This record gives sequence, structure tokens and C-alpha cells, in this order.
Amino acid sequence: MAEQQQKKKQLHLGAFMRPVSLHTGAWRYPGAYPDANFNFQHIKSFAQKLEAAKFDAFFMADHLAVLNMPVEALRRSHTVTSFEPFTLLSSLAAVTDRIGLVATASTTYDEPYHIARRFASLDHLSGGRAGWNIVTTANPDSARNFGKDEHKEHGERYARAREFYDVVTGLWDSFADDAFIRDVESGIFFDPAKMHVLDHHGAELHVRGPLNIARPPQGWPVIVQAGQSEPGRQLAAETAEVVFCAPRTLEAGKEFFKDVKGRLAAVGRDRDDMKLLPAAFIVIGDTVEEAQAKRLKLDSLVHYESSIASLSIALGHDASTLDPDGPLPTDLPETNASKSGREGVLKLAATEGLTVRQLAQRYGGYSGLAFVGTVETVADEMEQWIVQEGSDGFNVVFPFLPQGLDDVAEHLIPELQRRGLFRQDYEGTTLRDHLGLKRPSNKFFS
Amino acid sequence: MAEQQQKKKQLHLGAFMRPVSLHTGAWRYPGAYPDANFNFQHIKSFAQKLEAAKFDAFFMADHLAVLNMPVEALRRSHTVTSFEPFTLLSSLAAVTDRIGLVATASTTYDEPYHIARRFASLDHLSGGRAGWNIVTTANPDSARNFGKDEHKEHGERYARAREFYDVVTGLWDSFADDAFIRDVESGIFFDPAKMHVLDHHGAELHVRGPLNIARPPQGWPVIVQAGQSEPGRQLAAETAEVVFCAPRTLEAGKEFFKDVKGRLAAVGRDRDDMKLLPAAFIVIGDTVEEAQAKRLKLDSLVHYESSIASLSIALGHDASTLDPDGPLPTDLPETNASKSGREGVLKLAATEGLTVRQLAQRYGGYSGLAFVGTVETVADEMEQWIVQEGSDGFNVVFPFLPQGLDDVAEHLIPELQRRGLFRQDYEGTTLRDHLGLKRPSNKFFS
Repeated sequence: MAEQQQKKKQLHLGAFMRPVSLHTGAWRYPGAYPDANFNFQHIKSFAQKLEAAKFDAFFMADHLAVLNMPVEALRRSHTVTSFEPFTLLSSLAAVTDRIGLVATASTTYDEPYHIARRFASLDHLSGGRAGWNIVTTANPDSARNFGKDEHKEHGERYARAREFYDVVTGLWDSFADDAFIRDVESGIFFDPAKMHVLDHHGAELHVRGPLNIARPPQGWPVIVQAGQSEPGRQLAAETAEVVFCAPRTLEAGKEFFKDVKGRLAAVGRDRDDMKLLPAAFIVIGDTVEEAQAKRLKLDSLVHYESSIASLSIALGHDASTLDPDGPLPTDLPETNASKSGREGVLKLAATEGLTVRQLAQRYGGYSGLAFVGTVETVADEMEQWIVQEGSDGFNVVFPFLPQGLDDVAEHLIPELQRRGLFRQDYEGTTLRDHLGLKRPSNKFFS
Repeated sequence: MAEQQQKKKQLHLGAFMRPVSLHTGAWRYPGAYPDANFNFQHIKSFAQKLEAAKFDAFFMADHLAVLNMPVEALRRSHTVTSFEPFTLLSSLAAVTDRIGLVATASTTYDEPYHIARRFASLDHLSGGRAGWNIVTTANPDSARNFGKDEHKEHGERYARAREFYDVVTGLWDSFADDAFIRDVESGIFFDPAKMHVLDHHGAELHVRGPLNIARPPQGWPVIVQAGQSEPGRQLAAETAEVVFCAPRTLEAGKEFFKDVKGRLAAVGRDRDDMKLLPAAFIVIGDTVEEAQAKRLKLDSLVHYESSIASLSIALGHDASTLDPDGPLPTDLPETNASKSGREGVLKLAATEGLTVRQLAQRYGGYSGLAFVGTVETVADEMEQWIVQEGSDGFNVVFPFLPQGLDDVAEHLIPELQRRGLFRQDYEGTTLRDHLGLKRPSNKFFS
């Protein structure tokens, strides 16, 4: 039995935190802490619960602006005030011992010397638990907070990101692992022959180095990437060790898995050098019906007028003229909008019997991949994803906290452990250990 | 007696950490932890001891480069690998409750949106304990780590710093203190009428805002400034709430105090709105002789060949040709170098009877204002500085750790408390409370 369990592929689980729930109605759910998103004591307790449940990582999303949205939606947004990732994760590093800490940081609106330093520092402070979610920042509002009138176009952002990655990893390798001698007798603190001056001069960046910090415990913090576009997939194949993706179905997951993992050999990487962890919204109930009812309750807390636009976009049709409390008409005129998006909405409306209002609230709340059911049905679904190579695990999106997190930590995780799909305890101390990733060799010192 | 004590002017004490000792020989001192500068467990214990001793703040210096120095000096430098300030201080915030946390951050090589966000986040995470030491970064090596061939000239850096300060403080004021309603029933999270869009367009900076974080608990984190030059003093008068300065004598302290505090009225500020805290190197012994011996022992751990250049600069004369173990000749030929610097060296040589080697090691170790003696003699000197208006307290530089810090925390502080010169306990919770500084009003909301 134990032997059989060992043969099973293991799930990897991140907690995708914004820094609490991505769902726009989460803060209003009965029993939720309305200020949790901006309350360190709550976030600390969530991180400690995730660690007790042996999650691989606490993964923090980020934005570099207050999102530009109509005032009716804006004033309902519980993420308008958020902690900055480096400061929050460094505080969490001091009150946790094992869980990985992944921060989102932009290559478009920051400097590689700062980014390399802060991640190296977080990795040292946490004993090797840092990860860098590389983003190029898609939100054009950010540009105007950083002295730019125009947001750079997509290809340009990705070219800079690729060079930025080379510079940051080069800076992390400024010192050999054994550079620091600290010989009190002779007074020699380190060996300058084991310090590398990067002296990078590229198309976008000019950075001399060396970094003023020892090589991170993990060699390099774990590289996370979320691009879905063609340049995003290629950047991921070349650089990413964790890919955060958003397929809505197992079929879509398998397609993405095959495509991105298939690019690895060409760049000299192993299939196990990258873990694919899609976002998964998880709602647990004692029965499937109870879980579905929880979700409908949560969705009902989303403001209808602010979310109807999301439904219109998904449908390719102005949904604001429809009867909110009636069913979605099946004979909407065809438009040029995405056929698959429209079919998805129609299928959802039929499967769950949702009204126009409920559909809008679903799209305004959270409409990505979701596992809604009992611990058994959800564990079944998760298992299928890894057995069928749809993913290597998930970045869990919690519907509401603390209850939604407690349901996963206290009920789903034990079920996954019983099935031999998830660790009983951490086997190592670093995020690389948890993810089964190699420690990269130093580019300049062997 | 209690009443009389209350009338005494109170000392304010910061701990100036780099992040441990500034003295280049500190890591070699018997009993010191050679790796303390880069060991979070040690730094955490130092911060907790400083908090137990009721220090106002832990003040962290910073550099944005490995300093360019000859290899013989470089390989002896225990600060070549250091934590990054935001990450270190955020970790310390989670393991302390009252002590202020001051981070150095550059206006020349960072973006105001990032700086405003990180300090606001640190202030929220620490419950109102953050301070910003504004520097323009004098070290030209930094430029080349940030894509610049040329370091900006001094006046240009200060002009940018002044505008940068306006932008950062404006971003901190993005939300009124009562903007966040979090009304679960209506679903209204905050009042957009209480959010201000800065839309700054100046000579150097273009920043739209708003900041995506609530106003800091302190309104603004405490503004610290260390400029000694004419533009530095003026920037301090206009903006600084703590001035970090480096007079070597009480007379010089009084001159600086009078000059900088004298500039406040013209900009509409009160004399108490700014605290002057010079750096003070403190060595405690059971006798004055023991304290002096400790200092000589520490200085002897400085590499002579690497420190002779510092002595040459102070003297305005090449000191490398002199007999290291003989006295300093009193008949050195006059040069164009600073007369006061030369006189200072001659006076020091005469007073303490130091050899050329010992003088070099003093200048290569730490040669600023120092109080070296028993708890009584040091307390006497500190008291004179505040009675005679040389300062409002000090930023203590520790000679070596942990012992030098323990001597101050366990012996000097109780003596200052007995004299009614220093708090027995924190009276408030924020760094502004400790320093007796007002909470600034919001520029856009009353």
C-alpha cells in the first residue's frame, strides 16, 4: 500500500492570494473578515494554516495601480488597498518556517538591481523559500504611475522581460557559494576571486554589478511565469520553473501542458524542470448541492450592474437589455465575438440553470476553472488532472476566508493525503525542495 | 523628584545599524559573531534587545552597490553582503512590537510610486513604526547598476529629491483616513470621494496615482534626512523630522543645531517638529581606561595598509611613508588640505598618544563623534549635548556586537533612566509617538 502510494504522481499546491480572495464578493460572505485583505493578523493566520496543511507556497498577486473601473465597481472593490508584496512576504517569512513565498514583480516598471536584491534578501531571510512571479504588467494604468504616457507594446515588454531575467539571474550569481570565508584570524572576510562583475550591456539594460548580497540559498529563487500568449509561452519554456495558467477545462489544460512542456527539450530542459499549476477555485460542501449553494450565495454578493459588462463581453452581446431574473435566451443573434466564449456561457446557463443575473455575477465574481463539491468529488477531479497530464497541481483560489480555506486545509488536504496524492509533511526546507526542482548551478563559478 | 525629572529634556535614541556595526573591525572582535551582519537570527535578537531598552528606532543604512575599493580593503569588508532594507525591516516588524524601523531609500535610483507603496506597506505592517531616510545616493558606483553612465551632479540630485518628496507624500495622502467603510450589507467598501488622484507633472517626475494602499497609520512615515551640505540643510529644514548628522564635537553640534533649527521658522515649522540626532560611537567600560583599551583593541583589528589612505586624506599628507609604529611628526609640511582636518588629527595624536598605525586604524575604523568611558562619564557627555542644544539625542553606533550593544542596553540606558533623561517605557505605539512628532494632516482631505 505504502509502496503503491509512493508510485503516485504528487500534487503541488500553491495558494493564490490577492492577498486573500480573488472573488469580488468574498469580503461580504457571512463569517468572512471584511478587512482581511489588508489585515496582517488575518493574513498571518492564513499563511500559518496553509503551512500546517503543507502547501508548497503562498503566491501573492499584485497590481501597480488602482484599477481603472467605473465608480460603482470601484467602490465595491476590497483589493483597492493592499500590502506591497516584498514587505508583506518578508513579514510572513518571520512568522512561518517552511511554506514558499512567491512575490509578483514587474520587469517593465522596476530595475533589475532592485529586483535581484529584494528576492535574494527574501530568499536569505526565509531560508530559501522565495519565488519570483515574473510579470510584464498588462495594465496600462500602471504606466502613468511610472512617468510613462504610453504602456509599452506586448512584444517590447517581453523582449525586456527576457533580458531582465538574464540580468537578475546573473546578479544572483555574483558570488560563488563558497566565497565567504570570514576568517577572524587573518581578517579576510571573502575571496574577491569568487565575486563576478556582470557588466551587462544589452538592448534595454545596462547593469554593472556585482550584487551586494551573497548568492541566495536556493541559488536562484524559483522562477514563476504566467504568460499564456505565444511570447509568454516561449518565455516560460526558456525560464519558468512554475507556470501559472488558467485553462477552464481539463481538455484545455492538457493542450497547454503538452504545448509548453513540449517546448522544453528544444531549450535543453527536462520535463520535470517545470511544474504547471493552473488556478483552481475550490468550494467544498458536505454534499455537492451544499457546495453549489455556497457558491451561488457567494456569487449573489457580487454587484449586478457592475458585472453585467463581463457577461456581455463573454457573450459578445449586450446583456444589459435582458431580463436579469429570467433565463438566458438561447436564440441570441450571432455576432463576431468569440464563438467558444459564447458557447461556454450557454453551456453554463444550461448546466447550472442560471438566470442572467446569476450568470453576470459568476463572470463578475470568478469564472475560471472551479472544483465545487465534496472532498471526494473534488479530490477525484484533481487526481484526474494530474493523471491525464492536465497539470502538476494547482494554485488554489479560495472563495471566501477563513471558512473556504479551512475547508480545504482541514478536509480536502487529508483526503488527498489518504489517497497518496499529497505530502504528509515537508520533506525539505526550501521552495525548490517542495516543488522537486533542481538548484541551478552558478553561471560563473562551478 | 518625579516632577523634576519630567521637566528634563528627553533624549531620543536611534540605533544606527549597517545593519550591525559600522566599524570595519567589528566582526573580528573577540566574542562577536563574524557573520552577524548577514544573519537574521542575530539581527532579530539585536532589534529585540534595542526594543527592551526602549530605543526610538532601528535605523538601517544602505548602499546600492558593492563599494569600489582596493582588493585588500574589499576582501576585509564584512558589509559586502547585506540584507536589503525593506525586506529586512519588514521581517523585523513581525518580531517586534514598538521600536521604530527606519529604512534608507534613494530618490535618485528608485521610483516614487514604489517608494511610497513600500513605506506605506511597512507602516501598516508595523502598526505605524516606519521611517524613511531620504538619500540622494552619493556613491557614483551606484549609477552603473541602474543603467546610467554618469552619476547626476549634486544640485540635480537634490532638486529631484525635493520633487520626489512632494510626490511620495502626495501619494501617501491618496485616501482620507476615513475612506474605508467596508459595509457588508450595502457592499460599499470605500468612498471614492475620499480618494485623491495626484496627477503630478513636474520637472523630473510624472506620476498619476492614486496609491493602491490606505493612508499610513502615521499619516506619513517619519522623514529622516542626513544632508550636511547647503542644499542638504535646506532640504532638511523643509522636509526632515529627524536629521542624522555627524558633528565631531559639541561645538560643531551646536553650530549645526542652531543653523538647521534656525531655518524652520522661515518654512512655517516649529523647532520641535525636527529632532537632531547625530551619530555617536559608544564604548562602555568599568573604568574609562578599560573603555579606551576596548576601543584600541577594536581599532587594532583594522587592516593598516587599507586604512592609511584615510589618514592621508585627513592629514592632507601622504602618511604611508611615515614609521607606522612611531609617533605622528608634529612638523609635517603645510598643504592645501583642510586645516581643521589636519588639526583634528594632530590633536587626537597628542591627546591619546597614538602611533601612526593607531591613527590610521582609527580613521579606517570609526573616527566620528565618540563617547568612550563609564556609564557615568558617557551619560554626563550625552546630557551636556542636549542641555547645551547640541542635539536632541543620538543615533548610536555600536563598536562591536553583541557586547557593545549589551553594554549600552543593560548599563548605560538604566543610568540615563535614573537621571530622568530617557523613557522608562514607551508611551505610545508609533515612531511619531516615540519622537514626539505630530501626525501630518492630509494635503487633500481635512
